[in-house]
Amino acid sequence: MTDTSELVAQLADRVQLLEDKLAIMHIISAYGPAVDSGSAEAVAGLWTEDGVYDVDTGSMSGRAEIESMVRSSNHQSYIHGGCAHLVGPPHIAIDGDTAVATCHSQLVLRDTETGVNRVARITANRWEFARRNGEWKVTLRTNRLLDGRADARDILASGVTATV
Amino acid sequence: MTDTSELVAQLADRVQLLEDKLAIMHIISAYGPAVDSGSAEAVAGLWTEDGVYDVDTGSMSGRAEIESMVRSSNHQSYIHGGCAHLVGPPHIAIDGDTAVATCHSQLVLRDTETGVNRVARITANRWEFARRNGEWKVTLRTNRLLDGRADARDILASGVTATV
Amino acid sequence: MTDTSELVAQLADRVQLLEDKLAIMHIISAYGPAVDSGSAEAVAGLWTEDGVYDVDTGSMSGRAEIESMVRSSNHQSYIHGGCAHLVGPPHIAIDGDTAVATCHSQLVLRDTETGVNRVARITANRWEFARRNGEWKVTLRTNRLLDGRADARDILASGVTATV
Repeated sequence: MTDTSELVAQLADRVQLLEDKLAIMHIISAYGPAVDSGSAEAVAGLWTEDGVYDVDTGSMSGRAEIESMVRSSNHQSYIHGGCAHLVGPPHIAIDGDTAVATCHSQLVLRDTETGVNRVARITANRWEFARRNGEWKVTLRTNRLLDGRADARDILASGVTATV
Repeated sequence: MTDTSELVAQLADRVQLLEDKLAIMHIISAYGPAVDSGSAEAVAGLWTEDGVYDVDTGSMSGRAEIESMVRSSNHQSYIHGGCAHLVGPPHIAIDGDTAVATCHSQLVLRDTETGVNRVARITANRWEFARRNGEWKVTLRTNRLLDGRADARDILASGVTATV
Repeated sequence: MTDTSELVAQLADRVQLLEDKLAIMHIISAYGPAVDSGSAEAVAGLWTEDGVYDVDTGSMSGRAEIESMVRSSNHQSYIHGGCAHLVGPPHIAIDGDTAVATCHSQLVLRDTETGVNRVARITANRWEFARRNGEWKVTLRTNRLLDGRADARDILASGVTATV
């Protein structure tokens, strides 16, 4: 190859990596708006068909179970009373066709009687991704409450000690 | 064209799109620091000359009205008592010379008597952008309180169901 | 040079700038997960060897002092009781081999007796970076409480009035 075509090939790889990182951000930034609007299919569609959403109180496997969570009376009472699932800027590590993103999330809930908002939960998030047919999807999201439990700290540590 | 020059042209388009996305992030990430420092011109300058900032309590049209909000005694009392306008990571969809970004925001206010911070507002945000003379500017930002009202959910849904 | 090789050289510069911005985001997004997991070396490693972390209550100089803060009984009581150091999306200005990023942060602390979370602090952040041996590192992070004090507003203003 000529020098130019070699340089172009290297640039193409670098641009692809940048696109991958923004694609991961794009997925994570969709979660809050989708779940707080009750857009059950949009939420579930962030995951692979067999993707898993593992939270402290249990684990949802596959899109149908994730959609059911969004449609549950519990979640519907949140969004009709006022809530915000706030997901922070992710720390992203990409390795070929898989990726891991680590961040915090907050759940702010409005008390429907008093109108007062409270930070109901602070949570450690680990998002695992795979590229399937050229598109990134969540394969596993693991959330653990930041209430002092060790596994929440483990989630945060694993996301930053491997890549710093 | 040769294969290389064709590939370079495609790469240039991809780089432009990445730059556009980061430009949108750059504007949105300026809002909180600008408004919480009372930088009225910097806030208003994020919008086009005739841009609109539509909030629950009314709509500001044009930069002069947006500057007036920043200089109002109400806003000044917030920033001199302690406040944070926290804007979350945006979910961005670009279509040529226009773009839409969807995210949450939070207003945290400090009680000047007790020193206690409270989440005074959680809000659904829709930011619409246009490229004018090569520069992205906000044409319309619509904010609706996440207190259970349907139009707040509509804002969030419209940002993610079109692009997921 | 031919037109193509000239265009490739320009593209390489643009890609480098995008990579620099994402590298800055990558560092800032590591702080919260690292500090909330007690990963003292990972926290300190975000700074240069002689980097400074200047907070309202004092200034830490060099990695050893930053590690000591993470290992302090005060910080350890936070993370074992439940806390989240939430750092918002940064507004980034890059100038060659230095950069400035401006954002908000929040500290949410859980009361270990009641289990109630409260927003203990809202803070203005200014991060200064330098590229050392091809790698971005924090040279100075300055945090000031958003409790009405003027220097917190100054930090936020300086980050957005220079670049808007």
